[in-house]
Amino acid sequence: MTNSFMQRAIDLSIENVQKSNGGPFGAVVVKDNRILAEGTNSVVKRSDPTAHAEIVAVREACRKLNSFQLTGCEIYSSCEPCPMCLAALYWARPAKIFYAGTRNDAAEIGFDDTYIYAQLMLPVERRAIPMKQLMRDQAQEAYRRWKAKPNKKQY
Amino acid sequence: MTNSFMQRAIDLSIENVQKSNGGPFGAVVVKDNRILAEGTNSVVKRSDPTAHAEIVAVREACRKLNSFQLTGCEIYSSCEPCPMCLAALYWARPAKIFYAGTRNDAAEIGFDDTYIYAQLMLPVERRAIPMKQLMRDQAQEAYRRWKAKPNKKQY
Repeated sequence: MTNSFMQRAIDLSIENVQKSNGGPFGAVVVKDNRILAEGTNSVVKRSDPTAHAEIVAVREACRKLNSFQLTGCEIYSSCEPCPMCLAALYWARPAKIFYAGTRNDAAEIGFDDTYIYAQLMLPVERRAIPMKQLMRDQAQEAYRRWKAKPNKKQY
Repeated sequence: MTNSFMQRAIDLSIENVQKSNGGPFGAVVVKDNRILAEGTNSVVKRSDPTAHAEIVAVREACRKLNSFQLTGCEIYSSCEPCPMCLAALYWARPAKIFYAGTRNDAAEIGFDDTYIYAQLMLPVERRAIPMKQLMRDQAQEAYRRWKAKPNKKQY
């Protein structure tokens, strides 16, 4: 089965290998059955570890919609989103996510998705990057002020 | 115990409530015992669901270093990173992460971190945002080309 939106995401992923922008991944955001935004992995080109295809496409789509939510949109990604991108999609709240390759396909060509999924599931004290809590009491002041703030934009 | 870098992250989080840029969160990236970059949650101001404090700070730090890696850096965040930010930190690979508030503190003031952590741990077919796999075979072409590419920048 072929889907033209997924075909576009895959075409972007193939082009991206030639362009040397970053990893071989592409994504598109679709709204009302049209492509609203496209993204390719641009980690190397932009020196930005967060510039994965899905995040590039989500940021561009949100800019066009002037909204931090992708209500009613669909995402087509040439690979299963890594945990960063999947969590970003949960924040953006599209209606549906389509993907082609799997996290294991990504791992086989050297991208750490499965490792990061596993790290996120570990308790804080068992993670490979050391994490330490400091000054929790002092941090509450911002949360108290946020709670008390009138007309805040919750998301 | 007070730590001046964490104090700065907390100060940024408190200021951010007043400024209405987004949620009450701040972060700094430290290298060689100096602040290299700062970030505040700017989701609302920038219409960007990925503009959490840590991600804003990481992008700025990487821009300054002209690198997609934060080797030898430390992150100080006024709140435990959400899964998007934590995974972004795994991609950026800092030496250590410090945080003040917890994911439960964030949840109590309306931020979905715990929910998203739980969603990421579910099998694909049980997630709240429907996910569907399409065209896996066609996606392999980009991976094959990546594998065969000489002098590629792996990360």
